[in-house]
Amino acid sequence: MAVPLEQRDEKGSSEQNNLAVANPPVHYSVILFPAFDALDVIGPVEVLGHLARSYQITVSFITTASSASSLNNSSHNASLTPVSTRTRAASMNPFNSSAFVSIPPTHSLADPPAQIDALIVPGGAGTRAPDLTPTISFVASTFARLQYLLTVCTGAGIAARAGVLDGRRATTNKKSWNETTALRPQGPLWERSARWTEDGNVWTSGGVAAGIDMMLGFVARTYGGAVARSIALDMEYEWRDDGSWDAFAYAQDMADAE
Amino acid sequence: MAVPLEQRDEKGSSEQNNLAVANPPVHYSVILFPAFDALDVIGPVEVLGHLARSYQITVSFITTASSASSLNNSSHNASLTPVSTRTRAASMNPFNSSAFVSIPPTHSLADPPAQIDALIVPGGAGTRAPDLTPTISFVASTFARLQYLLTVCTGAGIAARAGVLDGRRATTNKKSWNETTALRPQGPLWERSARWTEDGNVWTSGGVAAGIDMMLGFVARTYGGAVARSIALDMEYEWRDDGSWDAFAYAQDMADAE
Repeated sequence: MAVPLEQRDEKGSSEQNNLAVANPPVHYSVILFPAFDALDVIGPVEVLGHLARSYQITVSFITTASSASSLNNSSHNASLTPVSTRTRAASMNPFNSSAFVSIPPTHSLADPPAQIDALIVPGGAGTRAPDLTPTISFVASTFARLQYLLTVCTGAGIAARAGVLDGRRATTNKKSWNETTALRPQGPLWERSARWTEDGNVWTSGGVAAGIDMMLGFVARTYGGAVARSIALDMEYEWRDDGSWDAFAYAQDMADAE
Repeated sequence: MAVPLEQRDEKGSSEQNNLAVANPPVHYSVILFPAFDALDVIGPVEVLGHLARSYQITVSFITTASSASSLNNSSHNASLTPVSTRTRAASMNPFNSSAFVSIPPTHSLADPPAQIDALIVPGGAGTRAPDLTPTISFVASTFARLQYLLTVCTGAGIAARAGVLDGRRATTNKKSWNETTALRPQGPLWERSARWTEDGNVWTSGGVAAGIDMMLGFVARTYGGAVARSIALDMEYEWRDDGSWDAFAYAQDMADAE
C-alpha cells in the first residue's frame, strides 16, 4: 500500500484518500539491457522520482547481463556492472562518437527484487540484439506476479515476443513501427495512432519521450489526476494527457503518403 | 570540427555543408553533483546521443565529488564513484522513498577533460547544497575557454553565482523562480517568460524538461534546423522550437494572480 502517511485512516479506505486505485504499486523495477535508450528509462524514472516525494515507493534497476559476461570487470559485484547506452552496431554510430551514459543496476535477472509491483521495459537499439532470450523469458515468467507491466518505445517488441501483449491493445515507436510490430504481427492489437495504450494491467507507449506521457497517465490512473498534473508542472513537461492520439503517428502517416 | 565526413569538402566551407556555424562543439561535458535532477541531465544527453549518429562528438560527465569524500567507497577509482540523484534533505523525501538513479562519471573537477567545448550545468535539489563552492569556482574558471555554456533548470543558479550570467539574458525553473534569481538578483538579465534563452555563447533553460527544448534549439543553431527537427522526430518529442514563450511561466503567473 503506497498510501501517504498523512492520508491514512484507520479503515485504510482508498475512497477517503483520493487514490484512484486501492493498492497502487510500491515497488517499481526497470530492465536495463545493453544499448537501452537513456530517455526511455529516465523519462519514467523522473516521474517516479517526483511521485516518491508524495508516496513511499522504491525503484530498482535490473541488469540483463549475466555474471559470466562481466568477469573481466573490476567492479565490486561483477554482475552489477553499470549498463551502457552504447550500441555495438557500427551502423548506429558511423562517426565513432563517444556519447554514452551508463546506469549502475541494483539487481540482475538471476537475482531480481523480491517484489516487483510494476515492471518497466524500455526500448533502444539493444532491442535488436540477438541475445535477448533471457530478457524475454524474464518478462514472460514474471508477468503473472506483476500488478502492472509498462513498455516504452521498442520495449513493446520485447513484451510482444514474451507473448504478454497477446489480445491486448499496444503501441510502439512510430518510426520503427513496421520492424517492431513484425516481431509478433498477430496476437497484440497494435494501435498505431496512440501516444500510449492501457489495456488491463498492461501499458505501452510510443517512442522515447512518449514514455513520459504514459507514465504520467499511469500515475493519473493509479494515484489520481491531481498527482499527475502536479508532477508534470514540477517537471515543466507539457503532458499530452490524452493517450489516444499521437502527433508522430500522424506525421509518419503524412510522410508515408507523400 | 564536427563536420560529418560525407559532407566535408576540401575548402572546409560551412556554407556548403549546411552547418549553421563553422565550428560546432565536439566535446561536451555535463557536471554531476549529488542530488542532480535526472532528466535535467538525460534530456540534453539524449539529444546529444542522437546527434552523435550524424556528427563525431564526445560526451563526458564530471563529478564534483572530491577523492577524499569517496575514500570509503570500494570502487576501482574512488573519485569516480557514481553520482546519485538521492537528496539528503529529509524535506525532499518525507516518505523515505528509494527512487534514485546514479550515473558513473568519466572525470572529476580535479581531473577534468582536456578539452571542453560545451559545458552543461544541470539543476536539482543539489543546487541548494551548502558545499557548492568548488562547482561554482569550476564554472567561473572554465568559462573563458568554453565555446558554449548551457544551464538547465536551477543549474542557472550555479552559473549566476559564478558570475558568468552577468549582463546576459537568462532563465530558470519557474516554480523556484524567486529562490533561484535571488541568488544573484542583479547581474543576470532574468527573463521569466522564456522556455530558454540564448545570449552570446550562453544558453539557459526553464525547469527540467525545458532542457530538451533548449538542447534542440542549440542543435538547430549550431548544426542546423533540419538536424534538430530530425532528432525531435526520432525522440517523438513535441519540441517547443520557440524559446521566447513558456507555458509554465504563464501558468505560474496565473496561479500567483489568484
